[in-house]
Amino acid sequence: MTTYGLLIFEDAEELDFGGPWEVFTMSAALRGGADTAVLIAEHHPGPVRCAKGLRVLPDHGLDDHPPLDVLLVPGGRGARKVQAHNPVVTGWVAAVAERASWVASVCTGAFVLHAAGPARGRRVATHWQHEEELEALGEVTVVRDARYVVDGKLLTSQGVSAGIDAALWLVGRLHGREHARAVRRQLQYEPAPPYLADEPL
Amino acid sequence: MTTYGLLIFEDAEELDFGGPWEVFTMSAALRGGADTAVLIAEHHPGPVRCAKGLRVLPDHGLDDHPPLDVLLVPGGRGARKVQAHNPVVTGWVAAVAERASWVASVCTGAFVLHAAGPARGRRVATHWQHEEELEALGEVTVVRDARYVVDGKLLTSQGVSAGIDAALWLVGRLHGREHARAVRRQLQYEPAPPYLADEPL
Repeated sequence: MTTYGLLIFEDAEELDFGGPWEVFTMSAALRGGADTAVLIAEHHPGPVRCAKGLRVLPDHGLDDHPPLDVLLVPGGRGARKVQAHNPVVTGWVAAVAERASWVASVCTGAFVLHAAGPARGRRVATHWQHEEELEALGEVTVVRDARYVVDGKLLTSQGVSAGIDAALWLVGRLHGREHARAVRRQLQYEPAPPYLADEPL
Repeated sequence: MTTYGLLIFEDAEELDFGGPWEVFTMSAALRGGADTAVLIAEHHPGPVRCAKGLRVLPDHGLDDHPPLDVLLVPGGRGARKVQAHNPVVTGWVAAVAERASWVASVCTGAFVLHAAGPARGRRVATHWQHEEELEALGEVTVVRDARYVVDGKLLTSQGVSAGIDAALWLVGRLHGREHARAVRRQLQYEPAPPYLADEPL
């Protein structure tokens, strides 16, 4: 039984949590629904408007959620510019991180984990555009050539889409390689990014 | 100016629309916000609960949305089992598809496009688990070895995560290769799926 908690806030980048959400919930479904994934909002109840305008309804607030095995913090403008400077959120992240088995971030969610503590003194990944800015904060080593970085129980990943790879790694670590492969097959995650070649449109 | 309309309904698979949503909205942002992406719900107003429990608020209903350049239909249980048999939705899809420049589906969204008409007599892709079921409906050729399939103005893709690749192809087709590359770079879409090798956990 694994409980995944995904933090959500105004201007969180949609795919930052949407990718891991799909991986975690598909993993839960393939395990017979034994696991749970919940969206936990910085403010609750009421809808949260994400960075690109998607409105989602959280399941819980900071003071009202089940104990978490995995905490995941997405990125986006709301992470770097707002929540990294919001002591209510960073205090909550610090407290939850202490008890969780795994703490993860996607993209600039790493800024929240740095402000809250779990990323201090650690090797981390973030969005390519913000690597220097994160490193300039000090007490952190930004790894520039890894899609995701595991340091102890901290799992950080590069920009936006990287959370899918990181989440898939995590469900494999938690529930085995064969399980992760089954999740991957169900999501048909066999990426084929277009325009890698320069060819006629 | 491109207006993307993403259909949404109960039990739509989250990443089926969440992946293309991120691609389309990031594309719009990089084009200075000239473009628009909207979620259009089968029922509106009120929240829509997706296949894995995520609750989203739609922007519009079937009778109240801007003219669409691109219509995208996600998959999930709600597509194959419910909306493909809902004449209100298939009628709406047929009418919108006639005027749109592009009609797209992800995963089992192809079943809705088949029921509504746009996929009849066409080459299409769908989730690997439902290829035979779709082909058995007749009047359709299921392409099993392509991540996404373009046939005229119809763009269909394989399961769940394949919508990201298809959407990225489409923004490149609409706005150029260099633009698609910029979107890809911003989403840091450089996939690195884990567990492709059999190695110690």
